[in-house]
Amino acid sequence: MLPSPALPATMTAILISAPGGPDVLVPGERPVPVPAPGELLVKVEAAGVNRPDVMQRKGLYPPPPGASDIPGLEIAGTVVALGTGASRFAIGDRVCALVTGGGYAQYCTTHESTALPIPDGLSAAEAAALPETVFTVWSNVFERGRLQAGETLLLHGGAGGIGTTAIQLAKAFGARVVVTAGSDEKCEACRALGADVAVNYRTQDFVAEVKSATGGKGADVILDVIGGRYIQKNYEAAAVDGRIVQIAFQEGAKAEVDFMRLMLKRLTHTGSTLRSRPVAEKAAIAAAIVEKVWPLVTAGRFRPVMDTTFPLAEAPAAHARMDASAHVGKIVLTVPEQA
Amino acid sequence: MLPSPALPATMTAILISAPGGPDVLVPGERPVPVPAPGELLVKVEAAGVNRPDVMQRKGLYPPPPGASDIPGLEIAGTVVALGTGASRFAIGDRVCALVTGGGYAQYCTTHESTALPIPDGLSAAEAAALPETVFTVWSNVFERGRLQAGETLLLHGGAGGIGTTAIQLAKAFGARVVVTAGSDEKCEACRALGADVAVNYRTQDFVAEVKSATGGKGADVILDVIGGRYIQKNYEAAAVDGRIVQIAFQEGAKAEVDFMRLMLKRLTHTGSTLRSRPVAEKAAIAAAIVEKVWPLVTAGRFRPVMDTTFPLAEAPAAHARMDASAHVGKIVLTVPEQA
Repeated sequence: MLPSPALPATMTAILISAPGGPDVLVPGERPVPVPAPGELLVKVEAAGVNRPDVMQRKGLYPPPPGASDIPGLEIAGTVVALGTGASRFAIGDRVCALVTGGGYAQYCTTHESTALPIPDGLSAAEAAALPETVFTVWSNVFERGRLQAGETLLLHGGAGGIGTTAIQLAKAFGARVVVTAGSDEKCEACRALGADVAVNYRTQDFVAEVKSATGGKGADVILDVIGGRYIQKNYEAAAVDGRIVQIAFQEGAKAEVDFMRLMLKRLTHTGSTLRSRPVAEKAAIAAAIVEKVWPLVTAGRFRPVMDTTFPLAEAPAAHARMDASAHVGKIVLTVPEQA
Repeated sequence: MLPSPALPATMTAILISAPGGPDVLVPGERPVPVPAPGELLVKVEAAGVNRPDVMQRKGLYPPPPGASDIPGLEIAGTVVALGTGASRFAIGDRVCALVTGGGYAQYCTTHESTALPIPDGLSAAEAAALPETVFTVWSNVFERGRLQAGETLLLHGGAGGIGTTAIQLAKAFGARVVVTAGSDEKCEACRALGADVAVNYRTQDFVAEVKSATGGKGADVILDVIGGRYIQKNYEAAAVDGRIVQIAFQEGAKAEVDFMRLMLKRLTHTGSTLRSRPVAEKAAIAAAIVEKVWPLVTAGRFRPVMDTTFPLAEAPAAHARMDASAHVGKIVLTVPEQA
């Protein structure tokens, strides 16, 4: 490690004092982490809040082996130290990064291959809002789901961070987008971002709406964070040769399912989680994002939709907002110079 | 249609007199079919027997629109007439073909693009044993399942027509093969064909056996004809990034499943049926088979495993044998010159 001058020995981080509600998130003192070979140490300016952080807070999603127990999966800030062999960035570079944990802190390490230059014109808070959703949408909708121009994407939870990212990227790449969301206001927000059809799942049947929006054909790709009863409905809503990509189970992972549709329609039901993937796979996704997505940001065709930013110490309020599912777009924590 | 001389007006075919057991299969008189544009009329010498024929006999699998109601999905014989525009074969050519129905008869039409030249050295009965299983295995194991050399294939029902074909082809292309079968004798037959591991599902747990055979890794591709309780077990037996291809549901299509493994292991659960696919897709599969599989037949590295042949009039006995699941390899009907 090549230390930058004046690195403190300790830092403030948000710790999970016990599994529970938002109030279990408390500030605490931790050593500033040391970057391993190939890693960067980043002075954090902003950190995105994501559903896996909520699951981790509740004790339902333990960090993978080797990851920090401090919550936080994405950051933006300035490189302040380099681990042995790290060569893609220099001290002083401004980056955003997908991390395996530790984002809710003044300093955080990241492998250099999952760090990306901050696109021109974005604030630190906006940049911190990008990695988790862009990595997730790129790898699941475009790589795993193979969404093509002219095809229809069905997106559950269109108003959240992943949803607002997926709407914009799918439209930018020429697909039609049908979303589900839990209120008329959220549906309106999705349409404003470019969604062709927004279905209020509290009052409408999304299977019927997708069929109607596609002349009976169904959706070519479905990105699902719900699971549970949606699994069978997804099989109904999918087109022949459709791909269904499961990235969470907000309604549970168990379901009684009739797989006949899967076979007869030649569906592909697959899924992935980002956090557990090998660094080489994340690096390949990062390279594709810099090539395919960053130019859209620079051209003003894709921007993170920001819901609310909270100072790091108010992490409980940020989590309470996510727990209430009232947000549209991303919730981000900002790290004051002296926290 | 360019008629060949001396084509009779009528023919003998096996008809399904009512849904039921093998005895509902009765010989009857039908007009010799007329090849549509792009089709061939084949004088049938042999016709393979397949599980979908059994399902159709029971009234559980109606022929798709436009298909003959005479059972039989694969034939071998001699081209005796050409539909308008059919140009890939000439009258007198010997072919085997995947057909959408009508195989249990003296004459049968086939689209020219799903007909294949009979490889050198095969009898008509052997050639009639190939199309259904080779199309199924090629399109599901190698195309849909993307089996690679060095990977492990898990195959349920290893001793049947599809199983004995898949064992030989997977071994020829450099994969490891684990099969399940219902008796020690069938397991021995599978090992004799090249299976690396054969699991007697009546006395052994295939999940544990697959894990043990792969150093804990699991199977990269699973070809499943069972469904039901096997679906969850397949998710357990699959490797990270594994592909599970569902081609039948002998134990039913409904199951209570926990999809968490599908997401965490990034599995792909997919499936297909051959009969309903557009002719252009079947034609592409046929072209790949001529290029990749026929040379293996000619080289003696792959041959259909023949269980029993029955004369056409004994179709009930052939079905009774399949119903009893006592067979190893293919059951084929042969068509006498004067039936």
